[in-house]
Amino acid sequence: MSSDDSLDFDLVVLGGGSGGLAGAFRAAAHGARVALLEPGELGGTCVNVGCVPKKAMWLAAEVSAHVRLAAELGFDVPAHPALDWPTLIASRQRYIHGIHASYLRRLDAAGVMLLPSRGRLLDAHTVECANGTRLRAAHVLLATGSSPRRPRVPGAELAGVSDDFFALCEAPPRVALVGGGYIAVELAGVLQALGSRVDIFARSERLLGHADAELAEALQENYRHQGIGMHFGYSLAAIEGEAGALRLRDADGETSGHYAQVLLAVGRAANTRGIGLEAAGVALDAEGNIVVDAFQRSSVEHVLAVGDVTGQVTLTPVAIAAARRAMDRVFGGQPDAKVDYANIPSVVFAHPPLAAVGLTEAQARERHGDAVRVYRSTFRPMLQALADRPQHSLFKLVCTGAERRVVGLHLLGEGADEILQGFAVALKKGITLDDLHATMAIHPTSAEEVVLMR
Amino acid sequence: MSSDDSLDFDLVVLGGGSGGLAGAFRAAAHGARVALLEPGELGGTCVNVGCVPKKAMWLAAEVSAHVRLAAELGFDVPAHPALDWPTLIASRQRYIHGIHASYLRRLDAAGVMLLPSRGRLLDAHTVECANGTRLRAAHVLLATGSSPRRPRVPGAELAGVSDDFFALCEAPPRVALVGGGYIAVELAGVLQALGSRVDIFARSERLLGHADAELAEALQENYRHQGIGMHFGYSLAAIEGEAGALRLRDADGETSGHYAQVLLAVGRAANTRGIGLEAAGVALDAEGNIVVDAFQRSSVEHVLAVGDVTGQVTLTPVAIAAARRAMDRVFGGQPDAKVDYANIPSVVFAHPPLAAVGLTEAQARERHGDAVRVYRSTFRPMLQALADRPQHSLFKLVCTGAERRVVGLHLLGEGADEILQGFAVALKKGITLDDLHATMAIHPTSAEEVVLMR
Repeated sequence: MSSDDSLDFDLVVLGGGSGGLAGAFRAAAHGARVALLEPGELGGTCVNVGCVPKKAMWLAAEVSAHVRLAAELGFDVPAHPALDWPTLIASRQRYIHGIHASYLRRLDAAGVMLLPSRGRLLDAHTVECANGTRLRAAHVLLATGSSPRRPRVPGAELAGVSDDFFALCEAPPRVALVGGGYIAVELAGVLQALGSRVDIFARSERLLGHADAELAEALQENYRHQGIGMHFGYSLAAIEGEAGALRLRDADGETSGHYAQVLLAVGRAANTRGIGLEAAGVALDAEGNIVVDAFQRSSVEHVLAVGDVTGQVTLTPVAIAAARRAMDRVFGGQPDAKVDYANIPSVVFAHPPLAAVGLTEAQARERHGDAVRVYRSTFRPMLQALADRPQHSLFKLVCTGAERRVVGLHLLGEGADEILQGFAVALKKGITLDDLHATMAIHPTSAEEVVLMR
Repeated sequence: MSSDDSLDFDLVVLGGGSGGLAGAFRAAAHGARVALLEPGELGGTCVNVGCVPKKAMWLAAEVSAHVRLAAELGFDVPAHPALDWPTLIASRQRYIHGIHASYLRRLDAAGVMLLPSRGRLLDAHTVECANGTRLRAAHVLLATGSSPRRPRVPGAELAGVSDDFFALCEAPPRVALVGGGYIAVELAGVLQALGSRVDIFARSERLLGHADAELAEALQENYRHQGIGMHFGYSLAAIEGEAGALRLRDADGETSGHYAQVLLAVGRAANTRGIGLEAAGVALDAEGNIVVDAFQRSSVEHVLAVGDVTGQVTLTPVAIAAARRAMDRVFGGQPDAKVDYANIPSVVFAHPPLAAVGLTEAQARERHGDAVRVYRSTFRPMLQALADRPQHSLFKLVCTGAERRVVGLHLLGEGADEILQGFAVALKKGITLDDLHATMAIHPTSAEEVVLMR
């Protein structure tokens, strides 16, 4: 205890999600005394109501699709097997509890003090816990994450958000998904595969505005084939009815059919309230995200921020990398350590998955004009062909210049989620079409199509 | 017709497998007049009794494993569903017929003359068909492939080879696989998964002598867990009994139990007989392969050879690349075109698959001694963990020097077959461990483990 009766730390972390944990572990590895404040479950959105349970549900949906394929290949299985949701959910939650337990062990081993409490900045070097305990901190790392937004329309409180999806213990018979981004796409795909009948209502004119248009359209075709309804250019005006029988009303006054559940997936907002940012003088941008520079420094010296609360590329590995680099800089004697935000690969866990790194065709044409060359491969993966199913993959390569430098790679199809990572390494290193062609194909795979495009 | 009553071509190709077809198509694309001689099915080993039907059976085995996982996740399916083999085989053969039809269409479109006949060199520029027709050729491309070897032991004729595996229409109840290479490993895995009880008898002390020892041992653990018996250091002396009840006798006179089927997978031999190599003066090496230089030129001018018949890295994509490069050189005005035989990625379609590019740890230590650094990741893929199954993945990275240059990557686990291709591009381009770390991970995947190894 220091003289003013507070606890002294080199680092106090607000938020025990992926970014906060990564920062705490890395700082501790550099010898810093660290306190981590997290009032809820460790692991934040990713582990509890994001990547991890989402992937678990996606895997279940993929496995159910494989059962259908198995039936067509000659296995004695029902083509549309019933799913006991509670068994699946129990497996998923057991897996998540395992991650929680692992974090607790690692925090203990690293000597990080975990405080199961909210924290609030009193000034740039003082954090107050919910019970009034004050922590003195040489540095503060803000990693409080984000939460689903709700549109400001009458009845919005009748609908659920993605957090509520993860509380489901059965497939609602009919579901309306409001939104056209990756969360809407992922939840819609899983629910449709696991027993619901899903309609998507999106303000935009297509799904996945950030993705290459051609792939997004191909995915829409797949979703249509799977029975998912899609309504584009939709302007939600109100949600009406009562629990279990909800309807959407649009700006023209038209009313939808009834849905057992309406899920809102219209974006996420940084968690910046009630953590004392005003007291410390930490600046927010127009969207309400904490402003940071390339070194994750906020407007206040010694106060850093990483992850969703900054609104920077809101992906778990980015939050982790940003936290590690920042701690390497502050405590590890690496003054230049920072994240390179260029060419970050990402995957939308749709059915099939969509994976992308670098520029879309449209982005490339905007930057490079006529120097852009696009190569495509459309093919039916062998498993789909064996079962005589129509699902095709679409792979697309975006190159520029006479040397055909690869500036974008976009994969829609089975295995795309696992195929992309290695190509992302290659693209970041700098490759041309010739480098792809110089690499021997692995036959027969889907991945080989990337090195065979011409 | 030329004056001596023979047909004139720029190129005559012997063998309509992957290499021969690729050569014919590429030569025709460069404007050459091409004849292709193939007495059997187009597509050679790969399409008819190799990669393609093997992958189809592997996919069926993987799908059946997914049915088991589905049962554990809560789907109402039997954990060990019966398989109607004829349905599966019909799907597989329909797929293969589709490839045959596609080749015929493409040959027709390319203006290649297809002669369904064996061919025999009379001299370096003359090929005689089975019916006596003679073809004059400016260049000859030998692409006759290879066939399974049989060990010279009494009763070897009682056993089958991999070709016979592809004629099966049901799972033999008990199967002995003789051999420890990738063909034995692949056939054993598929048969065990699709209903047989399999024992492997290998001369070597472990499976997959070419693979990294650690991964090979991990695969053996998986196979043991799947119920596959393994006998190493086994010296086959004879095969005894009668069809449907065969036994193996070893060099010590010990006799095995009874097997419904014995399959020999002890290597393959180049198909060099009866094609007139002696008449033309084409030289063979000590193993009976056609000797070629880096440009695929045999000992006789204007006679080229590609693929298994040369004994060079016997993989379909290699044969295809060699044929294309050779034709680019001869007919395409690219005098330096040749295949780079370094860092060729390959996959063993085991359960789980094993994928590798570059040096094993042992090879690296032999070349680079103490400069070698090895990084490993052992983890349970989420799907296995959700179903509470023990199968782990083992990924291994081999680096050398202070800069940690990546010289080998070895992946055993779900998805390894699709993950490797992109990393093979990166490795060939030249990457270090830092390049892997600089690339953002894709979460949650198996592939991300490669960029997270430290």
